[in-house]
Amino acid sequence: MEVYLDNSATTRCFDEVAQLMTKVMCEDYGNPSSLHRKGVQAEQYIRYAKETIAKNLKVNEKEIFFTSGGTESDNLAIRGCAYANSRRGKHLITTQIEHPAILQTMRQLEEEGYRVTYLPVDEKGCIRLEDLERAITGETILVSIMHTNNEVGSLQPIEEAGAMIKRMDSRILFHVDAVQGYGKFRIHPKKMNIDLLSVSGHKIHGPKGIGFLYINDKVKIKPILFGGGQQNGMRSGTENVPGIAGMAKAIEIIYSGLDKDVERLYCMKEAFVRGIQELPDVTVNGHPGRDGAPHIVSVSFAGVRSEVILHALEDKGIYVSAGSACSAHKPQPSATLQAMGIHGDQLGSTIRFSFSVENTMEEVDYTLQTLYDIIPVLRKFTRK
Amino acid sequence: MEVYLDNSATTRCFDEVAQLMTKVMCEDYGNPSSLHRKGVQAEQYIRYAKETIAKNLKVNEKEIFFTSGGTESDNLAIRGCAYANSRRGKHLITTQIEHPAILQTMRQLEEEGYRVTYLPVDEKGCIRLEDLERAITGETILVSIMHTNNEVGSLQPIEEAGAMIKRMDSRILFHVDAVQGYGKFRIHPKKMNIDLLSVSGHKIHGPKGIGFLYINDKVKIKPILFGGGQQNGMRSGTENVPGIAGMAKAIEIIYSGLDKDVERLYCMKEAFVRGIQELPDVTVNGHPGRDGAPHIVSVSFAGVRSEVILHALEDKGIYVSAGSACSAHKPQPSATLQAMGIHGDQLGSTIRFSFSVENTMEEVDYTLQTLYDIIPVLRKFTRK
Repeated sequence: MEVYLDNSATTRCFDEVAQLMTKVMCEDYGNPSSLHRKGVQAEQYIRYAKETIAKNLKVNEKEIFFTSGGTESDNLAIRGCAYANSRRGKHLITTQIEHPAILQTMRQLEEEGYRVTYLPVDEKGCIRLEDLERAITGETILVSIMHTNNEVGSLQPIEEAGAMIKRMDSRILFHVDAVQGYGKFRIHPKKMNIDLLSVSGHKIHGPKGIGFLYINDKVKIKPILFGGGQQNGMRSGTENVPGIAGMAKAIEIIYSGLDKDVERLYCMKEAFVRGIQELPDVTVNGHPGRDGAPHIVSVSFAGVRSEVILHALEDKGIYVSAGSACSAHKPQPSATLQAMGIHGDQLGSTIRFSFSVENTMEEVDYTLQTLYDIIPVLRKFTRK
Repeated sequence: MEVYLDNSATTRCFDEVAQLMTKVMCEDYGNPSSLHRKGVQAEQYIRYAKETIAKNLKVNEKEIFFTSGGTESDNLAIRGCAYANSRRGKHLITTQIEHPAILQTMRQLEEEGYRVTYLPVDEKGCIRLEDLERAITGETILVSIMHTNNEVGSLQPIEEAGAMIKRMDSRILFHVDAVQGYGKFRIHPKKMNIDLLSVSGHKIHGPKGIGFLYINDKVKIKPILFGGGQQNGMRSGTENVPGIAGMAKAIEIIYSGLDKDVERLYCMKEAFVRGIQELPDVTVNGHPGRDGAPHIVSVSFAGVRSEVILHALEDKGIYVSAGSACSAHKPQPSATLQAMGIHGDQLGSTIRFSFSVENTMEEVDYTLQTLYDIIPVLRKFTRK
């Protein structure tokens, strides 16, 4: 049996997505900037994708900009905002548990003379609104808070944060990295006071190499790639039409069955958490129930190192993650877990199980049974 | 009959490329940063692609970095170099006929305090080495010259320029935008003194949304996207594995039959140019023969506006370009043609025909016959 439980690292592309992309690549392959029929045809895929996404977010099509993925979306949002607003102020606020695409971009801006406040989180991995309120100054130009944490699945108080930011200073921009939350939740930027929203294709059964950034029409940010002036000058470069069409198709599929799928994910999560807790000396990090994301379960198995569990599970055909996959082979102690107050042994014995709509309850049972078999054995070996 | 002669705008994806990408997207879909088998599998596609490209360029695998396409490669090369070397100097040299991905990036650097020299070209669209020699100063940190012009197919004296630059000051970096030349010529950076080389996937029957930048191992440039530290920190973001695998497959196919294919392209070009010249009042811009690229023919049809010809040909199923497709729907007078001394009526009556290995001599004949039919008619209408 093969059980893929690393869906927060990346997901399998839906067959319909790959089929559509093949059609776009081999038949409707025009350059959307070309003036002839093949160009117009290609442009229609882009227009349709924008319509699909805009409708889903309840925003305007003009507010959707395609990028090469979550990392570029985050870079464009943060640096684009910083460079466009540096005359007003050079202070940015984010959290200690963001994805490296945010954290490393912030560090880069610090090198360039910006000041960044990194909000702490509680033991469940959530920021406190009081901390945000205290952090905002007259110099603050941007607040960037992730929707769903990629390592423990904690959900941030996005709507409340958005309202607070705008109440305190309506000029402060609010960016949300929704790479893990989009496709699991209905996110409506206008209602939630979100000015910029990052999404990635390959976390929602779309292709790799594509993502988008929602930019509120009233917001002016600076581009970070220069060239032919595509996408209204905001993102130059021939549009990745197959990727765009594929991502839009994935979004259509995901959102057409969202409520049922999310309910099923929560049922799997709850069954998995219940089952895990039958093992002695395990800790489920973050919110084990419906206060957390439906698809991420972070578990610390006292006494066994993450890599050992990961490879033991791999032997049984189960694919999981030690931390997140986004830190490129560098097994460093997780900043998210540390920010949550997790230290020492627990830090190095944590496994992330991340589910998708393609997983089944049978796979959950198989994974639990495998853990029941291997964890006691691994602990015995480790203790010897 | 449908004849696609806009291959310099974008090419049809080879079927084998789309097939491989489907396999990668739907079966071998792991995140290359994941430590389990599915991650390792994904990483192997990247490794294989790097090997393929490195062998083709006669460089080291470590010197290949994947980007989202030609525009990002150009941005990374130029801004990465400028930011890394600003303490040594702030002078860059390029040409007047570069792609907007170079020209607009240079303009951005000018805004940031850099100084840029734009080399002129002769009436065939080629730079003069004397001009380059005169432009180099003690402040010069980078020279960027395109391999093959995208509008008229003129070939630049890359090897001679590389030798001259290094002879004058070995610290000056040499970047070559080979988006139009790669896949038509064998390009060996080490032999040609090229430090940085930009390539795009979708111009060589690979997918859109992927490209690479060769960076000489000895050269240190700064990244322009920040995040998880993938690709040795030079380009963060989950690698576009299907795009990378697809581009490598296209490169394999293209280069396995290169000599024969290029010979066939030149034969088609020569037949087309001969045929075109039977029409009165036409000018073939650039080198009409083997001194120019094998796949691009730029023709000015005195007395008829480009858009009119473009749509008349479209009506007959023939897809061409008025100028280049890379300027995103902005029908501006071509900077390349102007730099070549082409003005007035000729400027606005120019059509680019660009061929690929998938075109046939039969298509060339059909296109010529169509031009013989429509050009006199269009001229008659225009003159009335």
